[in-house]
Amino acid sequence: MNWTDYLDTHQSRFIDELVDFVTIPSVSAADAHKGDVVQAGEWVMNRLRAAGAENIVMLPTAGHPVVYADWLHAGADKPTILIYGHFDVQPAEPFDLWDSPPFEPTVRDGKVFGRGASDDKGGMFIPIIATEAMLKTTGKLPVNVKFFFEGQEEIGSPHLPPFVAEHGAMLKADMIFSADGSQWAEDQPQLITGLKGLVACEVTVTGARSDQHSGQQGGGIANPIQGLSQIIASMKGLDGRITVAGFYDDVIDLTVEDRAAFARIPFDEADYIERLGVPDVFGEPGYTTRERLWARPTFELNGIWGGWQGNGIKTVLPAEAKAKITCRLVANQKPDAIYALLKAHIEAHLTHGLRVRVDRLAGSADPFLVPSGHNSSSIAGEVLTEVYGKSPYITRTGGSIPVMTMLLNELGVHATVFAFGLPDENLHAPNEFFRLSSFRKGQTAYCRLMERLGE
Amino acid sequence: MNWTDYLDTHQSRFIDELVDFVTIPSVSAADAHKGDVVQAGEWVMNRLRAAGAENIVMLPTAGHPVVYADWLHAGADKPTILIYGHFDVQPAEPFDLWDSPPFEPTVRDGKVFGRGASDDKGGMFIPIIATEAMLKTTGKLPVNVKFFFEGQEEIGSPHLPPFVAEHGAMLKADMIFSADGSQWAEDQPQLITGLKGLVACEVTVTGARSDQHSGQQGGGIANPIQGLSQIIASMKGLDGRITVAGFYDDVIDLTVEDRAAFARIPFDEADYIERLGVPDVFGEPGYTTRERLWARPTFELNGIWGGWQGNGIKTVLPAEAKAKITCRLVANQKPDAIYALLKAHIEAHLTHGLRVRVDRLAGSADPFLVPSGHNSSSIAGEVLTEVYGKSPYITRTGGSIPVMTMLLNELGVHATVFAFGLPDENLHAPNEFFRLSSFRKGQTAYCRLMERLGE
Repeated sequence: MNWTDYLDTHQSRFIDELVDFVTIPSVSAADAHKGDVVQAGEWVMNRLRAAGAENIVMLPTAGHPVVYADWLHAGADKPTILIYGHFDVQPAEPFDLWDSPPFEPTVRDGKVFGRGASDDKGGMFIPIIATEAMLKTTGKLPVNVKFFFEGQEEIGSPHLPPFVAEHGAMLKADMIFSADGSQWAEDQPQLITGLKGLVACEVTVTGARSDQHSGQQGGGIANPIQGLSQIIASMKGLDGRITVAGFYDDVIDLTVEDRAAFARIPFDEADYIERLGVPDVFGEPGYTTRERLWARPTFELNGIWGGWQGNGIKTVLPAEAKAKITCRLVANQKPDAIYALLKAHIEAHLTHGLRVRVDRLAGSADPFLVPSGHNSSSIAGEVLTEVYGKSPYITRTGGSIPVMTMLLNELGVHATVFAFGLPDENLHAPNEFFRLSSFRKGQTAYCRLMERLGE
Repeated sequence: MNWTDYLDTHQSRFIDELVDFVTIPSVSAADAHKGDVVQAGEWVMNRLRAAGAENIVMLPTAGHPVVYADWLHAGADKPTILIYGHFDVQPAEPFDLWDSPPFEPTVRDGKVFGRGASDDKGGMFIPIIATEAMLKTTGKLPVNVKFFFEGQEEIGSPHLPPFVAEHGAMLKADMIFSADGSQWAEDQPQLITGLKGLVACEVTVTGARSDQHSGQQGGGIANPIQGLSQIIASMKGLDGRITVAGFYDDVIDLTVEDRAAFARIPFDEADYIERLGVPDVFGEPGYTTRERLWARPTFELNGIWGGWQGNGIKTVLPAEAKAKITCRLVANQKPDAIYALLKAHIEAHLTHGLRVRVDRLAGSADPFLVPSGHNSSSIAGEVLTEVYGKSPYITRTGGSIPVMTMLLNELGVHATVFAFGLPDENLHAPNEFFRLSSFRKGQTAYCRLMERLGE
């Protein structure tokens, strides 16, 4: 039996296994789910063992653990590749917007619905299956393979940098492939050459030492929600341009060639508007929506809260209000420098009569841009062309995979995204799903990738 | 035994009864506590019965019920007074800031701690006790008394206007006294001659139809939290002046005499700042803190929420953000007109790429200003002078008692606030308490008030 037949024969088992994997609520952001993240890591270890991987270990970090495994018997003349993915998932709130419970995955219309089905449990499971298929049918892999799966990607991999620095020898590889990422569409592959960086902070504005009656103190003291809103409003113009002093200073602007290349890839703005359900697009003036999404830095409020959120009125003048902010960064912005600008701006724009505190949140990433003519990307592109029957679009993404920059800094290797999720699969939102067709196609692609790299 | 001795003899029982009353979590804002509000009403009925009141009934409204009772045997030549109070309470959140649980009241340092102890369970219990003391010792009351206790004051008495309109004959009285309100200090009475009105709304800003990944869509579509913040920031200047067009148009400005009278009443701003724990006062330019609190309209955010409020980061671009706003109004602002101005301003200040909805919240009140030389206020002032040994300050308050305007409109009688809470008792905040000394003094004051009115 060849690996194609093996994959087809065992596909329903693989789907059942994916469903089982998604059942584990490995939410890295929630302390209450710490044990579930470990359990997901143990699931991965068992699955690697069944596939035939060796040297399987769970290694601690200051946060959630890492799972490492390898198979290194292809010979010294064959390249060693490192395959990356993550077994933690985003929080599933708000639960009431899910059509089926996020951690009771169901298969409907050729899709697995559940938190993490696409990002990244389905994705990271694919290379494990490819490894199993080749080892069970040929007894060997065409290349030496290392697996590096983490449990803190969804909170920005805060404890991974020291881990990567410490385990450089273990992770050393000639090429790196990320099983976290996405393709362009069901019938169109892409090669992602740029990812954004990330910096995050939480802003706390406080007034009185406890909540006050809005009739008794209203008008006499400043309102923290008002003050927080004024800070936020001061950070981005009504035209969509970020107004934090110095924010754009280190941005490498798009070249005429970059902009022309972006423009050649189809983008149906009316469809984009329709799909998201927004009245219109909105963003930085002077750039197209695609340029804004792929190559311009962003400033987004991820959360805000303060005072009464229940039904009806509570005439309270709250003691504090809080907001969470993340910025996505592009080359050559640096997270530390941008954080310093944000903090200075926030402190300078506080209304009289209030106090403000800015806390940096864990989760930080440098922007990432693959050089043109890069070896593993070229081969990945050829495999995608073969599997999809079309050459891939050369794209960027607004997302961040912090570990790719860490690995670049430590091992000197630019990772190539080789992953099969699709952008419409409700990542980080209710009703996340993964297409079974992508799941199957990705398995073939990973087998072919290993074959091509071993030639 | 005279009524003074009766009050002293039974004081510890009255305290136990107050503790029992506060145990009932009659939070009118929360659907889950609907039954508790009814239970509090039943407690009041039982207590009125024990005191000797008659014709005790619970009457329905479209929301929480009303409790009515009376004692009308003083004779046709004696005045009939209506005593008002409320048995519902504010929500107790955030629970973790309470030193003892809000609905497990404890007596410490001569104070009863618990939600509603001061506002208004302690307050409304006082005239019931005074009635009992006089009936048990003299067998009669010096005046005809009607009791009118409601269960929806803390949500702005939304369903009371039709009730009052329908029950005008039942509520008809020569004078009205509110057992909801406050005194100036432990040793200083006040006569409140002005209360603010109220108008409330909720603002909902929406973007995409579901939460989005801030990496995938960040920068390409508008962020509802950003848009909501920009709306809020546009409604009040950094100088504290409300910038909603037309907002101040109908305000009767303070006269030179009003300002002079306010200034004669002691106000220690440094102490005010210290007590609230704010870095400084803040408010409308051109007015003192007292003028802002007593006689200028306010615009306050009571709550805001949207996106992720948990620990750490969630890189979400939320689908919606919401805020609750209440304005306190002064003569001659009208709630309907101010709501229309707020709505128009909000709709006009929406960022491109978003939608906004403004919903009026139940709870509305006209501002209330007692005419000088008003009969029941004059007698109340004399009783306060006698009980405290000092003449009362003539004050206003930033709070609202919507029912006072309703009763004025329906019965043509200006109510007099005759109540014994103090403004430092953490109304609407954690660790609300009521002083037992005020509780006792209020009982004497209500007995003396009835005696004076009957002379």
